[in-house]
Amino acid sequence: MAEENVVFVGKKPTMNYVLAVVTQFNSGADLVILKARGRAISKAVDVAEIVRNRFVPTLKYGNVNIGTESLQGEKGDTNVSSIEIELRKE
Amino acid sequence: MAEENVVFVGKKPTMNYVLAVVTQFNSGADLVILKARGRAISKAVDVAEIVRNRFVPTLKYGNVNIGTESLQGEKGDTNVSSIEIELRKE
Repeated sequence: MAEENVVFVGKKPTMNYVLAVVTQFNSGADLVILKARGRAISKAVDVAEIVRNRFVPTLKYGNVNIGTESLQGEKGDTNVSSIEIELRKE
Repeated sequence: MAEENVVFVGKKPTMNYVLAVVTQFNSGADLVILKARGRAISKAVDVAEIVRNRFVPTLKYGNVNIGTESLQGEKGDTNVSSIEIELRKE
């Protein structure tokens, strides 16, 4: 079975996450899953495209899942969109 | 053949695009494609989730395609990530 490695994309610079994904592929992973919420979704897509175009040309996208997560905040619950992008090295 | 309707998500408020999508489904469309680039990608995901959770419960996601587009700017070409989200009413 392929190893599953998850990278959560947040507020750090884009290249930090690119490096994290590339490192996992270089460690032998076949599948890396990028997860992000809210405004970080755009950054997760950037990370995926930079990895594919510059570092791992054999990369293919697997499922791209979109959903909503409920966050508990001080002023009550808020809903935030989320994305999961499967990256597969062939 | 299903009608193809495209909604480009940009800088307007999220609910403008939600309304555009809902209007197309109410006009008889089976398939609406949301397209966005750069930072608007997060907004496109929000639009999709709001339409699905609040307005069109029978909505299913079709393909979600990720890519890179080259934009010609004053300071030369820049690459920007893009997304296409297929929304299908069943």
